[in-house]
Amino acid sequence: MNEINRPDVLAEVDAAFDAYEEALVTNDVATLDELFFDSPHTLRYGATENLYGYEAIRAFRAARPGTALARTITARVVTSYGDAFAVANIEFRREGEPRIGRQSQTWMKTADGWRVVSAHVSWMETR
Amino acid sequence: MNEINRPDVLAEVDAAFDAYEEALVTNDVATLDELFFDSPHTLRYGATENLYGYEAIRAFRAARPGTALARTITARVVTSYGDAFAVANIEFRREGEPRIGRQSQTWMKTADGWRVVSAHVSWMETR
Repeated sequence: MNEINRPDVLAEVDAAFDAYEEALVTNDVATLDELFFDSPHTLRYGATENLYGYEAIRAFRAARPGTALARTITARVVTSYGDAFAVANIEFRREGEPRIGRQSQTWMKTADGWRVVSAHVSWMETR
Repeated sequence: MNEINRPDVLAEVDAAFDAYEEALVTNDVATLDELFFDSPHTLRYGATENLYGYEAIRAFRAARPGTALARTITARVVTSYGDAFAVANIEFRREGEPRIGRQSQTWMKTADGWRVVSAHVSWMETR
């Protein structure tokens, strides 16, 4: 019932994910804000903060310094289920940071396009 | 189009989430395995590992010591979108660990019931 990686759906999500990544590394806050679902249910766990609701996420981005955001994606798995849901997971490296970063997002297709409803970013620990 | 928190859907997801949590703290590996979607697309980022595909997750659980898994949930947000997708996010504490834990899961309703298609667990850093 939820067909996995239907090509047209996956293409849409890949494009949305690419737009998000480009906005992140260039600190294009307007686009980042737009790509999160404007809802009190949206949430984002960052490396150093837990943000509940679209407004908390927006306020965090507005206050964050727009520096040192560059990163290199070292693994990427985007998977769509049906025509309205997808998960996007990446591993990334940031200069000066020895640990592997991980970012997980759940995307939903809305009337306005694909939007992130939940996100989690962290650094992997060594055992 | 994706109604948020339809009561009957949310009740199903809450029950599935509760079953997962109970299985986790009692190290009921069979139930944990059952509640992850059996697919090469399923993935789990843990505090110290990145696992791609159901088999990698299953092997990790089989090898993990079944001790020190107890935890206390300190925040919980389960949100369903439509009738087949949901995200479950919690903050938790574990004895002897000063940091806040976070667990994010994306759940999908399958013919066999609700299953986790993506998960991410990490400890929050202090700034």
